[in-house]
Formats: sequence, structure tokens, C-alpha cells
Amino acid sequence: MSFNTFGHLFRVTTWGESHGPALGAVVDGCPPGVAIDEAMLQHWLDRRKPGQNKYTTQRREADAVRILSGTYEGRTTGTPVQLMIENTDQRSKDYGDIALSFRPGHADITYWQKYGIRDPRGGGRSSARETAARVAAGGVARAALGLLAPEVKITGYMVQMGRLKADRDRFDMAEIGRNPFWCPDAAAAAIWAEHLDELRKSGNSVGAVVEVVASGVPAGLGAPIYGKLDSDLAAAMMSVNAVKGVEIGEGMAAAELTGVENADEIFMGNDGKPRFSSNHAGGILGGISSGQDVVVRFAVKPTSSILTPRKTITITGEETEIITKGRHDPCVGIRAVPVGEAMMACVILDHLLLHRGQIGDAGGKIG
Amino acid sequence: MSFNTFGHLFRVTTWGESHGPALGAVVDGCPPGVAIDEAMLQHWLDRRKPGQNKYTTQRREADAVRILSGTYEGRTTGTPVQLMIENTDQRSKDYGDIALSFRPGHADITYWQKYGIRDPRGGGRSSARETAARVAAGGVARAALGLLAPEVKITGYMVQMGRLKADRDRFDMAEIGRNPFWCPDAAAAAIWAEHLDELRKSGNSVGAVVEVVASGVPAGLGAPIYGKLDSDLAAAMMSVNAVKGVEIGEGMAAAELTGVENADEIFMGNDGKPRFSSNHAGGILGGISSGQDVVVRFAVKPTSSILTPRKTITITGEETEIITKGRHDPCVGIRAVPVGEAMMACVILDHLLLHRGQIGDAGGKIG
Amino acid sequence: MSFNTFGHLFRVTTWGESHGPALGAVVDGCPPGVAIDEAMLQHWLDRRKPGQNKYTTQRREADAVRILSGTYEGRTTGTPVQLMIENTDQRSKDYGDIALSFRPGHADITYWQKYGIRDPRGGGRSSARETAARVAAGGVARAALGLLAPEVKITGYMVQMGRLKADRDRFDMAEIGRNPFWCPDAAAAAIWAEHLDELRKSGNSVGAVVEVVASGVPAGLGAPIYGKLDSDLAAAMMSVNAVKGVEIGEGMAAAELTGVENADEIFMGNDGKPRFSSNHAGGILGGISSGQDVVVRFAVKPTSSILTPRKTITITGEETEIITKGRHDPCVGIRAVPVGEAMMACVILDHLLLHRGQIGDAGGKIG
Amino acid sequence: MSFNTFGHLFRVTTWGESHGPALGAVVDGCPPGVAIDEAMLQHWLDRRKPGQNKYTTQRREADAVRILSGTYEGRTTGTPVQLMIENTDQRSKDYGDIALSFRPGHADITYWQKYGIRDPRGGGRSSARETAARVAAGGVARAALGLLAPEVKITGYMVQMGRLKADRDRFDMAEIGRNPFWCPDAAAAAIWAEHLDELRKSGNSVGAVVEVVASGVPAGLGAPIYGKLDSDLAAAMMSVNAVKGVEIGEGMAAAELTGVENADEIFMGNDGKPRFSSNHAGGILGGISSGQDVVVRFAVKPTSSILTPRKTITITGEETEIITKGRHDPCVGIRAVPVGEAMMACVILDHLLLHRGQIGDAGGKIG
Repeated sequence: MSFNTFGHLFRVTTWGESHGPALGAVVDGCPPGVAIDEAMLQHWLDRRKPGQNKYTTQRREADAVRILSGTYEGRTTGTPVQLMIENTDQRSKDYGDIALSFRPGHADITYWQKYGIRDPRGGGRSSARETAARVAAGGVARAALGLLAPEVKITGYMVQMGRLKADRDRFDMAEIGRNPFWCPDAAAAAIWAEHLDELRKSGNSVGAVVEVVASGVPAGLGAPIYGKLDSDLAAAMMSVNAVKGVEIGEGMAAAELTGVENADEIFMGNDGKPRFSSNHAGGILGGISSGQDVVVRFAVKPTSSILTPRKTITITGEETEIITKGRHDPCVGIRAVPVGEAMMACVILDHLLLHRGQIGDAGGKIG
Repeated sequence: MSFNTFGHLFRVTTWGESHGPALGAVVDGCPPGVAIDEAMLQHWLDRRKPGQNKYTTQRREADAVRILSGTYEGRTTGTPVQLMIENTDQRSKDYGDIALSFRPGHADITYWQKYGIRDPRGGGRSSARETAARVAAGGVARAALGLLAPEVKITGYMVQMGRLKADRDRFDMAEIGRNPFWCPDAAAAAIWAEHLDELRKSGNSVGAVVEVVASGVPAGLGAPIYGKLDSDLAAAMMSVNAVKGVEIGEGMAAAELTGVENADEIFMGNDGKPRFSSNHAGGILGGISSGQDVVVRFAVKPTSSILTPRKTITITGEETEIITKGRHDPCVGIRAVPVGEAMMACVILDHLLLHRGQIGDAGGKIG
Repeated sequence: MSFNTFGHLFRVTTWGESHGPALGAVVDGCPPGVAIDEAMLQHWLDRRKPGQNKYTTQRREADAVRILSGTYEGRTTGTPVQLMIENTDQRSKDYGDIALSFRPGHADITYWQKYGIRDPRGGGRSSARETAARVAAGGVARAALGLLAPEVKITGYMVQMGRLKADRDRFDMAEIGRNPFWCPDAAAAAIWAEHLDELRKSGNSVGAVVEVVASGVPAGLGAPIYGKLDSDLAAAMMSVNAVKGVEIGEGMAAAELTGVENADEIFMGNDGKPRFSSNHAGGILGGISSGQDVVVRFAVKPTSSILTPRKTITITGEETEIITKGRHDPCVGIRAVPVGEAMMACVILDHLLLHRGQIGDAGGKIG
Repeated sequence: MSFNTFGHLFRVTTWGESHGPALGAVVDGCPPGVAIDEAMLQHWLDRRKPGQNKYTTQRREADAVRILSGTYEGRTTGTPVQLMIENTDQRSKDYGDIALSFRPGHADITYWQKYGIRDPRGGGRSSARETAARVAAGGVARAALGLLAPEVKITGYMVQMGRLKADRDRFDMAEIGRNPFWCPDAAAAAIWAEHLDELRKSGNSVGAVVEVVASGVPAGLGAPIYGKLDSDLAAAMMSVNAVKGVEIGEGMAAAELTGVENADEIFMGNDGKPRFSSNHAGGILGGISSGQDVVVRFAVKPTSSILTPRKTITITGEETEIITKGRHDPCVGIRAVPVGEAMMACVILDHLLLHRGQIGDAGGKIG
């Protein structure tokens, strides 16, 4: 987590702006011998791709990824994998208005305050387009997990749009791919569709909560302090544009529990592994995975690029109003689902390698 | 954030177990010429010290800190500052029962799964005692901030115990030091006192929410992606024992807002600096500080060491019940307040140095 | 220095193989506002470019660099700068023989031992082509130094080829650009030309020593232990392909000196800055720059890809002989000169930013 | 290698000054289950201990190391190991003269230039006493290597004092422990003894060359670029006080070889592992270990604290002369031998863990 690099042993460095010629990621430290090709990475990128329905930005990007290095005959060689995605649908004229004024709620003003220079075309580096590079890198991480820990399965979905929460009693994971919101509650998805349509037409936007679950994660990943699995997950999710809160397991609601309620009681399973009566902990105790599902949730704020006029100032300090024309997601949380999955894959793989490095097979058995 | 080290330029490495001879922190990268002495660090440690009232563990530790290196004639020299705190009240016999069984909700089991060995005396490295080292390091960070950015002020307080929330309309920051809960709402503190007393007597514990605010933070600290100020804050707070959720500004509630509501409108202040109509962003936009108050909240789960029996297993895989005698905090969130402040101080200082390193005085002026 | 990343605040991550579609570098942490364009980077790349005379490989690469991100209107924005160089003259057929056998003295065998897979085309990642990315990144570093510390001047040259040493009494820095060996001793260059021609014709190669001097380096850059300026310079130079030794100032010859001889005596200059009677230290004392010229030397071993048959084994363990056809540098040290300069520029800039981050203007004045 | 931390997964952070109350090292990332105790670490410290003969400083330090954390019942737990050594023989009065003037060839002046403050007592952080912490940490690394790679054997010795070189034809490793110079050539040791005695009596000092060999290092450790095994070794050795040059295998002399000479020809050994006709490479090809002996040499400059007067300036810029009374090593290279061994142990272990992390058992077999 130094500037634009994420990870310890599996290290992802992303680069590129919304309206430059290309963007991408250098994936360093990947184990050798992992079978990857552009088609399999494209599968994940297509899930995040804009312009697929009326609920996401109408910018049309193929998001075609090219592997420029680090493979030989279809397998990783252990050297850096460069993933490049060319930008093809940059209409800079759309963004002319925001070059001189700051969108409230947007990074426009802080980039200026920090650097004294900013690329206003499409938000430059602060654009959600940066997350395409994450999804591509996450595809490499998934492939490596497929080789090293094939039982790991990562599933993301939206659980809340605005004030409208999905109902866990109606969750059916098979529904996730069947609606444009990656929502496991089909009924909620239908209501969200109507709600978002109204917001969009009124020139407004809305926030969301995304949940990502990793099952099959081996026990023992993480570290007690600072290098905790949950600390890295929190950093990973909070590093995604527009995220304002991260929860592990019960998350903020853990504050409401008593110690008696919060204790995930432990039993022995028939397979000789520990079983738990509940998963308040979200699969992580003391920074280390327990073998339960790793459960992370994060809140995505509403897009700040909206058609409703808001008061702001210009670079020269004059007060004005701004509306943001152009093509924007009314609920950027939707496309954050595959991004959250990608970050989960990167963090789990990174900690798998870290664990193997420090511990090897010296971990403890129970029973 | 590698294993036991936190920070980029201002780097804190903590070490030590609950029941070893000592614990501490190496603070590396501190600017030279910062006046520090043991008394001023002790001030912060005393706020976290156990055994000060019936709401915290009855373990009696002086928590006396010694500066073993890195200063000359009372000022930092720019070389590593070793802060050591000797453990004086370790009664290992208190913990005999938990050497062979795993406390539900505790790191006992995952340490075993990871390392195949664990120091059961007082939780070893997973003990909340580790946070004493953070508070000491935070004292150094505060002193450095006092020299480099004297306008920065960091204030932490509890805003929720169990389901009982403090009322922001009654907040009076002068109250924080007047009750054992660091609560700015005196009425809530009185109710909490009663509530916690009951829980404690019934052998139970409870969670809490802590809020930490840094005012006077210069605009421009942070970085757009991965090395974001909020990403580092999330990692910092999540790295504290028992924390399960972290929020910046609106946090999880950002999901409920529309773009119109969430837009913190911008005006010019009389002092020529931008002013904002609200602070939904918690002082951070696009990973970079805006000059508004930086607002972080985190949830602390209830202590898992409780007197109520819970079902669990032993190291050899037999099912059993466990109660944890010994001296434990019924609401460990209370003592997390000075810890959260310390982490905030470390992160702000680290990003101040990072910003100065990359940017110097080249940041942008408005107006 | 993690896998393929070099630097602390000014961080360079290189990627790409000799015979892949492209290679390049992500430059992260560059200060904003630095004027860079492709033409100025090309200037440095052209100095390293192969095929310019008979003393370097006959591979013909334009080595045309493209800036894909991180600039706006010709200036750096503070976000990652992606520099890409497409490979245009990869003749994989040249390398067919070495896919199954290991060249003695080459990384062929260790790549195989480590990864179990290797890209044999042109040595893959171990090719000297990787250094093109360093030179491009060094061009960015030079531009940033031009803005932040314009008095810094970096000059590299060859001081030895095989057993033939240049004569320091004949050094004329104006000669460096006038011969194909970057040699400040014109007479030595003439002798080297003949010597190398003979070696080349006999299917042999030879080693060299390169010296890089940075003048105008501010005093105070570096850190006392581990993060020393000389430690980072040693790592930087040793990270270049084929380098087997690194010296600072007197280097290995420091062993031969007495304390009386080695003491660079100190005086006050007319400009109020310290002056030294000599520079045995190579401008670095205790890991920190003194204001004197920073002097680094490194030895480059002879190219292991030669036409003379050498005994070796195949991947399946059979003994055989190998000669390496194809296009190789008979003295790879020649093209290491601009590479050494680039690494010097990166290290000096990185430490300038680190120093500014930790210390700002708090350094000590003398007098 | 950030400020005072060395290593990637096996990370050593040292702290402490020559004349403070104590110094030490935090060893983080050590595998769990490694048997260590104070006696075994003391064994290594005693080899570096001052005051053992007339050829090293007469300061009398017990150099008694205490393990303050990270072990349970005599084995490492995987959490940070704090190693503390108390200073017992600090006579600050000895150093009074150098508080206001700068010793030529010493870090006095650059510390001042960098920090504007320095601890003059015994050189503060720049004292060779810092290396005691490295030796202690190296003892932990050796113990971990004993568990993970018991075939690794690390041997350091002096090969040159001043202009006097030991004769490799007379090398007998059994002699190393029998003379005060760790010299495998008994005849050379006798000559050195006389030479050093003279120098010492004349108030002078002298440099040295130390060689450290690691045998039994598994093939495959290291990484192709930047994170190379030799790059880390170069950084490690150059980070030791007074080191001015580092060589791998042939080192600087590699420049003198032709490609035909330099090629270590490869054969198959009877054990099914590759054998080499020579070891010009010093066991490292392309940054990765080949299974041959890893051979590193470094030059140590003469101590700059000498009794012969040298010209210098004061902090206020006045010209003066300085002699350094007090207790100093006439040839600090002697005590650098165990330090070099310690750094070798740390680097080899670190790369063993890194390799296991990224590659596991996926490396390539030959034959």
C-alpha cells in the first residue's frame, strides 16, 4: 500500500487515467505455472464493463485486456504480468465544465489542493475506470488461487441500495447473475430497478452496500497485529473509489452485541475440523482466518457527478453552481461488486503466499 | 503494514506479550528535534492504563514507559526511538484454564491454527496490552505534529455502548474527561455506567463504537489510490484488537444518501480557504484530506473473555465448556479511545511526511 | 526492492521480456509539475540503444518510448507514469538452441531451478533489454532533479575493459561522447576498440568497470543504517544484469588505506560550505551524503552468450556443449553506462524526497 | 531496507546508540517453532565482543543479550522477538572533544548536516556497537536456518589487512578460530599481528577485506530483477558501518575476465544435481542462487577515530585539528567478520521464506 501498489508478496501496481490512451496493472510476485489467458481475464472484466444496461454509465468501452508480459506458452513465469486496457471511448468534451470548478463530494478539489495540477478529463486518476485494472489483476489472483487453493470461492453481491435493503431470508445466490444489481434477492432487485430509474431521471444518484464472501479459505491466513487479514481487507476495500465504510462479519453491529451473543461457539465437525455455531467474526479472529467464510461488507457513496445543480467554487475561488453532464453511474455501487471480489481475491492470495513463506506446513492441527 | 510494523515514513514496530517481561514500540523515521520525554508520553499512557475504575480490567500496571534510544538532551535525533514498558502485574495462574481450550470469539484458535504454538499467558501477543505500545508511539507522533502542524487536534470519544447511543445534540467535549467512558454526552455516560455494571456482574461484556476526530489537518494529505488517507486509517483502526468495522464520515450510512444529499457544497471562507456546507465525506475526498475535520469511527466487539460458560473444543479436539476467569475489561471499547487517538496521530503524521516528501510546497492554492 | 520494484518514495516497477510485445516501467511517486515528454526520454534511451556500432548487439530496436499515463499538458500530475517500449526486432529463431540447454554463466539454469518454467526467447526477463525501462525511468528522475535540485549533474563512463584501464591523468569528460565506449580517455578508447574487435571476431566477450559520478548532490541525503544512501546505491547497481561488484569512493581499495590516509580533511570554503582535501569516501559518510561528489563504480562481467563452445547440461540432465548464436554484446559494460546513470538518478531523487519527507528544512548548518 | 529495518519477510529493525542505556533488534517474521535461547545468541555475540584482545577496542561490554518477547517455552511463536543488550561501559567523558568538531572520514559531519542534531557520545547511532544487534538477530536467523535448511553453513574470515593479503593456497578453515583476526591463513595472521601492533602504537588504523561464504544454499533463492539475492546481499553488507565495497564471486575482477574464462561450465553430479567447473559467479546467476557456494566479499575502511591529528572544522565553522582519544578499534574489519556472517544468515533466511512464499515446491528439477 504505497501510493499505487497494493499487496505484500502478490503485488498489484495500477496506472492510467480515465481519458489517457490506456490503463492497466503490473502484477508482480505471482506464482509461476498459473494458466492465464486474455479470454479468462476478459470474463471478469465484462462483468464490470460500463454501458451494459441503463443503470450504469453509457460510456462504451470494450475493456479488452492484453497480457504484455510475464507468461510463456499460456502460463505465468513468476515475472511481472503487465495487463493493459486501452481506452477507446473518451469524449473529453463531455467534461469541459469541470476543469475549472470542483464537484462537491468529488476528489476534484483535493487533487488540486495536493498536487496543484490535475487531469480533469473524466476525473483522471480518480475515475472509476481505474477499477478495471483491479478486476484484471483479480482475475490473475483467482487463477492462482485455483491452482493453490481450489476450494476458495469468492462471491460478491449488493445487499442495499439507498435505504432499501435486500432480505436475507430471500437470498438465492443463483439470482445474483440474473439481475443488473448482482442482488441475491430477486424481489429487492425489482424494487431497486424502479427506484434507480426514478433517481436517474431526476438527475440524482444513490449509495449502496456490497458484501463479498470468500468460502473455503484455509485457516491460519493473516497475522496478529498490523498485518492482519482484516486490516488488509479493510485497506483493500477502502482503497476502492467512493467507499466510506468497511465491515468484517458483524461489522459496526458488533458494538451492539454482548460477549455471550458474540461468542461463535466451537464444535468438532465430522471431518475433524472445527465447526462454529455462528459467524459473527466474519471468519477472522485476531487478524487470522479461522476456516469459516470470510465476510466483508463495504458502503459505496452516491456518485458525486450529478445533473442537479450544487453550489461550489472555481479554481480561482469564485462561488458558482455546477452540474455534471456526461455519462455517469447513478449507482456506482453496482459496478463495485466485481471490484470487491477482485480485491478479496488479491488479499486472500497475498496472505496465502505470506503464510506459506513464514510458516510453510508448520501450522497447528486440532485433534 | 508488514507483520508488526505500521506506517510508511513514520514507522511503528511493536513487540511484546501480555505476560512477558516487557513490551514496547520502535518508532522509526520521526523527524529530528522533536521534544519528547517520558512524562509527556506517560500522560497518554495513563489514559489507557487498566485498573483505574471498576469498568476496566483490575490488572494493576504502572505502564511506566522508558525511552531507551533516539533522543539526545530531550529531543529526537531522527534515529529509532525505543519505547519500553515493563509488565509488572502478570499473574499467569489466572490463565491456566485457557491453555488447552479455545475461547469462542478469541484469537486462541487461529493463533494455534496458524503457528502451531501459542503463548496462552494472558493471550500473549493478542492481548489488549499490545495497545499500550501504540499509545506510547502515538505520544511521539503527537509531539512531532505539535512541531510540524500545531493546529492539528485529535479527540476521541465513545458514541455507543451496546445498543445505547449517545445523543449528538447533548455533546459537550468538555465532558469527555469527566466520566470513565470518554463520553461527550454526560447523560448517556450515566446510563452506560448502570448498564455496564449489570453486565459485568452477570459475567458478560459488551461492544462499543468509538469516534476519533482530527481537526486542523492540512488539505492535501493522502494519495489517490491504495495509499489513500482513508485506506491507511481503515487499516490502522482495523489493526486494533477487537475492531470489526471502520467508517469515514458518513461511513456505512453513506449508502443511504442520494448524490444530492451527499454533496458537501463548497464556499469560500473569509480566510480565503474553502468552506463546506456539511461533512458527509469525513474530511477525505478521493483519498486526500480536504481541510475539513477528519472523522473516523470504529466498532469494538465485546470482550470474548467472559464468566458465562460457552461451548468450545480443546487443542486435542474434545468438546468442552469454557469460562474465562481472570481480570478482563467488560467493555474493551472504553480503553480503545486513547488507542484510536494514537493511531490517528500516527497516520496523520505519516501522511504529512509523505506529502512533504513527494510534493513539498508544490500543492495548489485556491483563489 | 521487492521483486520488480525499486525505490522508497520514487518507485520504479519494471516489466517485460526481451521477446514479448513490449516492456516498460511504472514510475510512481514522482513529484507533480515536472515537465516530461517522449522526446526528452528518448534522448536517454538512444544512448543505450543497441545496434549503433559494431561493439554492441546488432539487434535493431527503435526503443521508442510512449508515455501512457501520469502527465497532463506535458507535466507530471503526481500519479503513476507508465513508460512503454515496444519490441520490434524479436527474431525468436535465433534463440532456438538455448531453450533446452543452459548457457554457462547465464541465468538460464537458475530461472529453471527457481520457477520450473522460463521464457527462453532472448533470455526473457533476464535480458539486458530490461535496462531500457530503467533508462526511461531514469529520464523521469533526471527531469524531477532538474526541478528540485538543478545543480545535480550525473556522469557515467567506462574506466576499464578487461585488463585495460583508462588513465585518470588523461581524463577529459568532453571525450566521453566522442567514442563508442563512453570513455573519458581517448587513447584508451582507441586501444579498447582494437581489443574488442579481436575478441568479438574470436567469438569471445569481455568484462568492464563503469564509474558514475553525481556532483551537486546536497549534503544530508541518506540514513544512518540500512536505509543508507550507499546501501541503496549498492543495491541499485547490483540489480543491473551482469554486475558483480560495487564500490563507493575508494571501494575495495579502502582496505589498503590507513586511517591517516583515508581521512578526508575538512576545511571551510569561501562559500561557507565545508571543503574536503580528498574524496576517499566517495561523497558518503555514515550512509549520508556530505556534499562532495558521489562516486560509484561497478564491475560488469563478460556476456555469457558467446560463440566459443562451452560444456553444459540440458534440462533433462544430459551433458552437452553449447554455443550461443544470435546477436549479443561482446562487452555489455558499454551499454551499462547509461543504465548506471539512470540508477544513480533514481536513487538520488528517491533520497531527496525521503530527506524532504522526514527532515524538511530542519537539517544543520555549519558556521 | 527502510530507515532502520532490513529484510522482506524476515525483518530486522535495530535501535539504540553507543552510549544510551541499551540497544537491540526487533526480529519480525521469524517462523514459529524455532528453538532459541539467550545462551545460543550469546555464543555469536561473544565472537564480536570488544575488549577481548589488544587488537580491538578496550571498551568492556558484557554484550549480554536478553530475549524480551516472541518465545514461549524456548521456541519462537512467530511474533516479534525483541533482543536487548544493555550498555554497561559507557564513559561519555572519553568523547568530550568530538562534540564540537567533526572527525574527518566519520559520520559526525553528515549526521549534523542531515539532522541538525547528533548524539556525540561514542558516535551515537553511527557507532559500531549497532552491529551487536545485527549479530544477535543473525543468531535467530541461523537457528531458523538450522530448522528449515540445516545444510546451510556460513563462514566468515578476513582475507586482507591493509595491503597484506592472506594466501589462498595456505587456507585452512580450522585456523579461523585460532587467531584474533579470523584468518584461515595462520602465517598471514602472524604478520598481521605485528603490523597492526605497530599501527596501533603509532595512533593509526587500517582497513581490511572480509569474505563470507554460505555453502549448502538451495538453488532458486532470489529474484530476477531488483529483488535479486546479490542485490540484497550488496545492500546488507554495504549497510554495515565502514563498508565501502561489496563483491559477489569474482567481484570487481569479473571485469578482467573474458566470456570464455568466466563461464562456469556445467556437468551432472553423481547425486543428480548440477556441478560446476568453477565458481566465478559466486553462486548467484541472474540474481538467483545456483546451489554453489554463495561468496561475498566486502572492504572495511580504516577507523576514522585515530590519535594522529587531522585538520577539520567545528560546528561553528572554525578550522581546527582533531585527535580522537578514547577506545577504538585499530582495525574495525576484525569485528566485522561475525557481522558479515550475521547479515548473510539474515539474507539467506529471508530469501528462503520469500521463495517458499511465491514458489513453494513448484521449482524446476533438472534431469
